[in-house]
Amino acid sequence: MGMRLGESVSVTLFGESHGRCVGALVEGIPAGTEIDIDALQADIERRRPGRKGLSARSESDACEILSGVHEGRATGWPILLLTWNSDARSKDYGFLPDQPRPGHADMTEQVRSGGAADLRGGGSQSARLTYGLVSASSQLRGLLRDAGWRVDAHLHSVGELTAPPLFGLDRDGELPKDSNMARLNCRDEAASESFSELIESVRMAQDSIGSSVECIIEGLPIGLGEPWFDGLEPALARGMMAIPGARAVEFSRGILASRMRGSEHNDAWHLDGTNPALVGAEEARADGALGGRSTGAPMRIIVHFKPPSSIAREQSTLHLPSGEQRSLKIPGRHDPVLGPRAVPVVEAIARLVVADLGKIGGFLKSNESE
Amino acid sequence: MGMRLGESVSVTLFGESHGRCVGALVEGIPAGTEIDIDALQADIERRRPGRKGLSARSESDACEILSGVHEGRATGWPILLLTWNSDARSKDYGFLPDQPRPGHADMTEQVRSGGAADLRGGGSQSARLTYGLVSASSQLRGLLRDAGWRVDAHLHSVGELTAPPLFGLDRDGELPKDSNMARLNCRDEAASESFSELIESVRMAQDSIGSSVECIIEGLPIGLGEPWFDGLEPALARGMMAIPGARAVEFSRGILASRMRGSEHNDAWHLDGTNPALVGAEEARADGALGGRSTGAPMRIIVHFKPPSSIAREQSTLHLPSGEQRSLKIPGRHDPVLGPRAVPVVEAIARLVVADLGKIGGFLKSNESE
Amino acid sequence: MGMRLGESVSVTLFGESHGRCVGALVEGIPAGTEIDIDALQADIERRRPGRKGLSARSESDACEILSGVHEGRATGWPILLLTWNSDARSKDYGFLPDQPRPGHADMTEQVRSGGAADLRGGGSQSARLTYGLVSASSQLRGLLRDAGWRVDAHLHSVGELTAPPLFGLDRDGELPKDSNMARLNCRDEAASESFSELIESVRMAQDSIGSSVECIIEGLPIGLGEPWFDGLEPALARGMMAIPGARAVEFSRGILASRMRGSEHNDAWHLDGTNPALVGAEEARADGALGGRSTGAPMRIIVHFKPPSSIAREQSTLHLPSGEQRSLKIPGRHDPVLGPRAVPVVEAIARLVVADLGKIGGFLKSNESE
Amino acid sequence: MGMRLGESVSVTLFGESHGRCVGALVEGIPAGTEIDIDALQADIERRRPGRKGLSARSESDACEILSGVHEGRATGWPILLLTWNSDARSKDYGFLPDQPRPGHADMTEQVRSGGAADLRGGGSQSARLTYGLVSASSQLRGLLRDAGWRVDAHLHSVGELTAPPLFGLDRDGELPKDSNMARLNCRDEAASESFSELIESVRMAQDSIGSSVECIIEGLPIGLGEPWFDGLEPALARGMMAIPGARAVEFSRGILASRMRGSEHNDAWHLDGTNPALVGAEEARADGALGGRSTGAPMRIIVHFKPPSSIAREQSTLHLPSGEQRSLKIPGRHDPVLGPRAVPVVEAIARLVVADLGKIGGFLKSNESE
Repeated sequence: MGMRLGESVSVTLFGESHGRCVGALVEGIPAGTEIDIDALQADIERRRPGRKGLSARSESDACEILSGVHEGRATGWPILLLTWNSDARSKDYGFLPDQPRPGHADMTEQVRSGGAADLRGGGSQSARLTYGLVSASSQLRGLLRDAGWRVDAHLHSVGELTAPPLFGLDRDGELPKDSNMARLNCRDEAASESFSELIESVRMAQDSIGSSVECIIEGLPIGLGEPWFDGLEPALARGMMAIPGARAVEFSRGILASRMRGSEHNDAWHLDGTNPALVGAEEARADGALGGRSTGAPMRIIVHFKPPSSIAREQSTLHLPSGEQRSLKIPGRHDPVLGPRAVPVVEAIARLVVADLGKIGGFLKSNESE
Repeated sequence: MGMRLGESVSVTLFGESHGRCVGALVEGIPAGTEIDIDALQADIERRRPGRKGLSARSESDACEILSGVHEGRATGWPILLLTWNSDARSKDYGFLPDQPRPGHADMTEQVRSGGAADLRGGGSQSARLTYGLVSASSQLRGLLRDAGWRVDAHLHSVGELTAPPLFGLDRDGELPKDSNMARLNCRDEAASESFSELIESVRMAQDSIGSSVECIIEGLPIGLGEPWFDGLEPALARGMMAIPGARAVEFSRGILASRMRGSEHNDAWHLDGTNPALVGAEEARADGALGGRSTGAPMRIIVHFKPPSSIAREQSTLHLPSGEQRSLKIPGRHDPVLGPRAVPVVEAIARLVVADLGKIGGFLKSNESE
Repeated sequence: MGMRLGESVSVTLFGESHGRCVGALVEGIPAGTEIDIDALQADIERRRPGRKGLSARSESDACEILSGVHEGRATGWPILLLTWNSDARSKDYGFLPDQPRPGHADMTEQVRSGGAADLRGGGSQSARLTYGLVSASSQLRGLLRDAGWRVDAHLHSVGELTAPPLFGLDRDGELPKDSNMARLNCRDEAASESFSELIESVRMAQDSIGSSVECIIEGLPIGLGEPWFDGLEPALARGMMAIPGARAVEFSRGILASRMRGSEHNDAWHLDGTNPALVGAEEARADGALGGRSTGAPMRIIVHFKPPSSIAREQSTLHLPSGEQRSLKIPGRHDPVLGPRAVPVVEAIARLVVADLGKIGGFLKSNESE
Repeated sequence: MGMRLGESVSVTLFGESHGRCVGALVEGIPAGTEIDIDALQADIERRRPGRKGLSARSESDACEILSGVHEGRATGWPILLLTWNSDARSKDYGFLPDQPRPGHADMTEQVRSGGAADLRGGGSQSARLTYGLVSASSQLRGLLRDAGWRVDAHLHSVGELTAPPLFGLDRDGELPKDSNMARLNCRDEAASESFSELIESVRMAQDSIGSSVECIIEGLPIGLGEPWFDGLEPALARGMMAIPGARAVEFSRGILASRMRGSEHNDAWHLDGTNPALVGAEEARADGALGGRSTGAPMRIIVHFKPPSSIAREQSTLHLPSGEQRSLKIPGRHDPVLGPRAVPVVEAIARLVVADLGKIGGFLKSNESE
């Protein structure tokens, strides 16, 4: 119910795009976990609007920690994180609720709330609420690092253009400041350049374009995840499909698997030193999970996003009071592509899900100081 | 935690492939809901093993209702459904746990359970447990029919071969008995013939092949679904990815959306009689959900399955006690393709999810007799 | 929702008094936990009807384990336990639903289910469903014993008569066979004799009488329990008040605490060897929990039960079709007092609750073999 | 897990006594529900510290609504409520963690959090967090009023002194300003005077005293509540026992029931106009719930509180570093009795529980505007 993800480690989102704040209530982080404020600001920075060529909205986005952290460590009880809204231009949304935007949740939200919702800027359905996800999951970085679990994502495709597989790229270095790689959260330089050109041409055409994000989860112990509905893929698919604009999610070989023969698809177990491991892991195409539980092989996930629904050019859509189709030019400030800013959100979901399943399965301590 | 799907209408699976039974505990079906035993048997029949050309295992699969139904109606309290196992050949699995099969959950289950699990036939991770899903969701048919909500699925692709879109096909008629359409749960005759030929050739080659299932959900009211993590796509994606062998799930235009421009992707609202509706709905490609809530347009879902991991030919995999790669020939009786029998399972998940979200949102009565 | 207790270790009840069976689905018992069939039968025996002077209904009550146990150990996945109903006399309940019994749930169940419920013998609200609780919690005995946690209950009072505090009595020895102590689940011989006389006189008078059960939980580590709503007392109070006929629950000094001064109530911490402990613990009156978490002192609980509502003499109650008060003589076979058979149910609730909180807090392993 | 109460309507507490704020995240309030700010301030005022003769701590306690309310109505999504801490005197708690106070959660919290918790003023276990409960439940007043459900509580006893039954007292009028009735939240004038004298004498003796609160829930429809563990009494008992200092909870005739005969206890159904109702309801002693579901009769609840653990006189307790018993004089500002300020908290729990069960059972609309 509502806006919560996770059971043992959970995050509940709150806030509205044009209300007073957006944020998250995070529960289940073990007492004693160090809260890394620098990592928090770095993570927030990666999803921040106001970057060149992307959304022009400028928010300070400074994160306030209002409870659950004492002297730099988690107390074990609910952590309240929020950021105040400062740059909302509510007058931009005077056309609502009369003229619901194509591709946005204005209409479903208006009907569902019986007209009581705050529709401005997408209200509580705005992608701005992913701020809460990113800041919440950032609290988990230390915990996962200590466990040796690693989550990395980058921009995988824009329109028809695709970057090389993330598993083969450098995932450690910091992306060069002010580069297209940093701006687009893409780990391949050549791809970032061609992505950037394509995005710019789309923006010039007052249009938007689809994209996808690739994510690798590495280092999970064999057996992590619950069987059936709380397995790794079900839990991750649920979280990823909740990111605004997501339209498909693939695991391991993904859609390609539906075109393969068993004899070419099956990954055999072999010995990696003294530990059982899956052959095929090096391409990160092997099944990272079987029966919902980790095989120890890297999990590869691709999340596909539609083109942003808000485009600068005029669109024709229903004017509810008159029942007519009328032209609508959406003011506001919008991204021409979702993928770049979705990268840290995809990572956030992956971190939250593996921390939750890890704690449920007893792979993470309930209390750091035990 | 565990093996449960749903909150307000929920199903919890239990049982093992070679144990005494498999089944489901179903909670939240409104008191007074008529339980249609004929529909139940028909649904079970569609996922039954022992069909020509598919798995040779023969089970009577008769469903016992042990609680929660009184004089043909749900009492409102937990419904226990099960079927007794009769045709399990446990001796086929003597190679476990020493030699975990490629592509199966033997190893993850063995590690996770510390060796306490019943691995025979996949144990509690066996696709045989989808019996519980199908029988549970069958109880919801009457409820959804009364609400005017409709769920239909069929076999969409096998390997490189693809059937035409389900939305344009007849979804009402009964499939001709003993036809390939009935045998493969496919609503297009020509496709079913070519699928059948391909599957047969794969089977002859002692191999298996990937496939996909398409599902259409129609008739949902605008607004059904929760925002964010319990939205329609997140909830459906979670359920679908829990089906054994699922590797990807697509909604609406799916992966194609990541290659499109906003100007071609956006579906405008218009009037359908006196009701707002989405243009583009007729191809069932429009967004069936926005912000997690139904737009009233049909929801289109495609679930992609890997080729079955059990193939008749010899495979080489790790022999744990010796640490050597050894050849393994899996006896047992196995399908060369997952899609045909997954069709009723995909429908079951879709029914359970929309009933659950419908009840949470107040779109379904808590009690039939209110 | 529904009929489930617990989060990390949970039990869901199902069945009806006059249906095919009653039982429980138990989730979260760590893989590898030994399942002690002898303890199970002994526990079931203690709550069995058909004992001299108590309910005359005779059931074999043999417990079937249908899933989740393999070669004597829990697999970690759902355990289905049930017993078949054999001695139900449904014709005894012909007065329902027209004439709801005083003090029973007939009317609330009839209204809530819109008439769809099976009211015979109390249906799914029958105390017979506590069978599921007792058999489920019995699976936890080994787990708790290994942890050094101990749960004991006995009959504390009948009417105005009260037994001495349980903490001072022998809690180890087996109760003498066929004694009143064994028959009434009471650990004090003198009390059991006077209880027995009182109960017999009440039975002769075709009446029933109230009672209470005392429970001691011992050996919990400091800190077990969640703060606030999932604290030890909230969780135990919830479970205890779900036992049919429970009307009050007391912890530590209970109601007496509301009449005391702080200077006499406060228990100071002191050293017990090298461990901090509460003074006052020896009388088991000190606070077993503070802020919802265990102090390490024994937890003392008293659960008060009303007199059974079914009495042999005629009662006057509403005849719904006529709107008249009419006389009703309830046939059936009923206990004159609830406490004796509630003893193992109180223990069952206590075991389930501490196992659940222990696993949530990381005090119990998720997997026995880790 | 954690600090959440409720499923369909839920509240999650956060904050620390000496941290930046305390508050609650409230989920599930139907969209369109009017948020009554005046009622909110009045409710907060009733539990406010700084009242004459009670705790001397002075907080402005103004409530900030940071999300989920738009133009005076609930949007249907999470409502974030908080108040900033302003008058915390942290230096008063310099004796922690070395010398845990008798009767407080200092030690359990210190052990559970591995030393990471903020213990000052009770940290996240402080009764100050009941602020969140009161402000959250206040949002439900309009909803319950429209449904005709009514919740009233008052101070029932202090030490050995007891007020007359609440059901016979005026529950409508506003309590006279600056009267002992208002100061103590007691609806009987004579009782309030004698309570006041007793409390003052206890305070003068640098001691504290136990107390109890009586609560009447009236107007619930027959059938509200879930069977077994989410029944009215289990759910209410859980919530009430989570209030700091609660040691026992009674329903209907409570403990007295354990001393009665069935023939005197049983309440017969009769006709009240054209509706079935319980005889005995007028004294509010009849069973307000049977089988966990409302009978339509008023529910009577008594919650018993221990004397506050903080008293002004010196106490001897363990000094952890030295292992010695040492004298401790707790500075701070503390109430000599819990009941008066617990009255609005008891009401808050009752409102939250019946709203939650009402929504789960379909007795409350999911959306006000439907």
